[in-house]
Amino acid sequence: MTTKAYGAHAGDKPLEPIDIARRAPSANDVQIDIAFCGVCHSDLHTVRSEWAGTRYPCVPGHEIVGRVSAVGTGVSAFAVGDIVGVGCMVDSCQRCSACDEGLEQYCENGFVGTYNGRTKDAPGHTLGGYSQRIVVKDAFVLKIRHPVAQLAAVAPLLCAGITTYSPLRHWKVGPGKKVGIVGIGGLGHMGIKLAHAMGAHTVAFTTSESKREDARKLGADDVVISKNTAEMKAHAGSFDFILDTVAASHDLDAFTRLLKRDGALCLVGVPEHPHPAPNIAPLIFGRRAIAGSLIGGIAETQAMLDFCAEHGIVSDIELIAAREINDAYERMLRSDVKYRFVIDAATMGAE
Amino acid sequence: MTTKAYGAHAGDKPLEPIDIARRAPSANDVQIDIAFCGVCHSDLHTVRSEWAGTRYPCVPGHEIVGRVSAVGTGVSAFAVGDIVGVGCMVDSCQRCSACDEGLEQYCENGFVGTYNGRTKDAPGHTLGGYSQRIVVKDAFVLKIRHPVAQLAAVAPLLCAGITTYSPLRHWKVGPGKKVGIVGIGGLGHMGIKLAHAMGAHTVAFTTSESKREDARKLGADDVVISKNTAEMKAHAGSFDFILDTVAASHDLDAFTRLLKRDGALCLVGVPEHPHPAPNIAPLIFGRRAIAGSLIGGIAETQAMLDFCAEHGIVSDIELIAAREINDAYERMLRSDVKYRFVIDAATMGAE
Repeated sequence: MTTKAYGAHAGDKPLEPIDIARRAPSANDVQIDIAFCGVCHSDLHTVRSEWAGTRYPCVPGHEIVGRVSAVGTGVSAFAVGDIVGVGCMVDSCQRCSACDEGLEQYCENGFVGTYNGRTKDAPGHTLGGYSQRIVVKDAFVLKIRHPVAQLAAVAPLLCAGITTYSPLRHWKVGPGKKVGIVGIGGLGHMGIKLAHAMGAHTVAFTTSESKREDARKLGADDVVISKNTAEMKAHAGSFDFILDTVAASHDLDAFTRLLKRDGALCLVGVPEHPHPAPNIAPLIFGRRAIAGSLIGGIAETQAMLDFCAEHGIVSDIELIAAREINDAYERMLRSDVKYRFVIDAATMGAE
Repeated sequence: MTTKAYGAHAGDKPLEPIDIARRAPSANDVQIDIAFCGVCHSDLHTVRSEWAGTRYPCVPGHEIVGRVSAVGTGVSAFAVGDIVGVGCMVDSCQRCSACDEGLEQYCENGFVGTYNGRTKDAPGHTLGGYSQRIVVKDAFVLKIRHPVAQLAAVAPLLCAGITTYSPLRHWKVGPGKKVGIVGIGGLGHMGIKLAHAMGAHTVAFTTSESKREDARKLGADDVVISKNTAEMKAHAGSFDFILDTVAASHDLDAFTRLLKRDGALCLVGVPEHPHPAPNIAPLIFGRRAIAGSLIGGIAETQAMLDFCAEHGIVSDIELIAAREINDAYERMLRSDVKYRFVIDAATMGAE
């Protein structure tokens, strides 16, 4: 089954239209006609070989929404016509303690990424959502309960949404808690919306004065310009939890000092160059922690989608045609997007 | 009331006998005739002005055991003749949320250290346990239930003991848990004894092959030479909790990689030079944390002392005369002590 896609043949080559093969659905497979796919920074890192181990051709994309067009004989949870999503994972071992606990993202045998993961299908690695169709094991398909008109803006929930939702839930963010979100980009803008909807007092941190008003509109109760030492100092020792979405190397001490006793600074971005060595005194003198978190499990992703549908939460997006993807990457590198590009899959092969 | 003590008049001067004043006990005070005082690395840092803000004359010592020789009219919990201890704190605000929760070590208004803390008593700062007598508010005095013959070896429990006990309890170390203790010194040797007594599978990490046998005798179920990459790798992803007692700058990544998902590496030593910047990938890909912990609260210190009395746990010590303290510091800097020096207070003013 040939499917139109966008991908690259090498790390120094632009993305271009390519034809890829999708397997015929087997018993537990769901075949999805993709409507939209969000554009994540990981897509760019992978397709440009900025992380080790990219396999080519590379078709990125793991913020996928679409409509079921076929199901295997063993699939009962999904039917043709259902609106569904696929996130960062399409398989995992399903038998380790992490998988048993619904934490497939920490699968001890390594989950299979939606792109660049190992698979028996040709060409031996998974090909992602910058394509018109995908076939995925039913256990990794999510139900979408948002109105269909919002579908493009739902796509980024599958990575940006769950990456921020999961740590906010794990660290028990809710009413009575003061929560910081560092960075107002693809992840951060979702973090603000979600923390606000969870009922926490939500403070956005940004280096750009220009984003102050935007952050308030997204739901921030307060906005702090993190370069302003006096503004930062006024919040010392006051946060229960800070979610740091900034993937560039930066000073962590400025944030650990803002935590209450037993507070945690949770990092969700892997910077290309390490953060400066943190001062451990704020950790010791307040039993604080610097932690990390990776996307979320399948059950939790479904819970996040349902939470967002219930609260009317979607991503703020800029819809693009597939042929605009290389330009979109350049704009993404300049943080020139509010706040997520989403590819309209109908535009593939339309030039 | 003049008391014999050992202290220094400046950061570059050796410790020598000095006479200090102790206040007469007021209503809630307990006057203690000191029997023994442990020698902590913090003593050396402070007396030599290696940390900011040392006030002189400086009399260190916060691992104090002795006998009550007088009590104020309002003291009901202690009586003359009781065997008691004093640790790192002699006061705190008693009205912040940390104090309310029995976590005086995180007092939001700053606890008063047993030495070098602010006090109304002359000379304006507290003077510690390298002395023959001390007067302490009853709320900061601990009961000692060990046999009197063990008293010298009980002294280090007041800092080295509680500094390791508190995080082991906070992170719920016990049967079925695999716990690492990094460094086999004053703190580390207590960590091994305590984790073992709590029922955890206890693994000691050391850079010295020569300490392997000692670690086993202290209670380690397994000993890993942390310089041996293959030995380290065999434990990857297997620890629930690792307590790092090493106060010198060192690679943390080697230990975060040994943690299970959701495991924590807890630091209790503040190095003079920062640790190398940690790789945050092991944090993100396993929801692991790097945290810190500071001594313990008063109620928890009492619980630790009772736990140790019940399990027959004391420190391994080398008893010294007060006049040997300067040599002891030099040996401590070479890690040439198994595992804690303790000053016999009876030797003060005996030369």
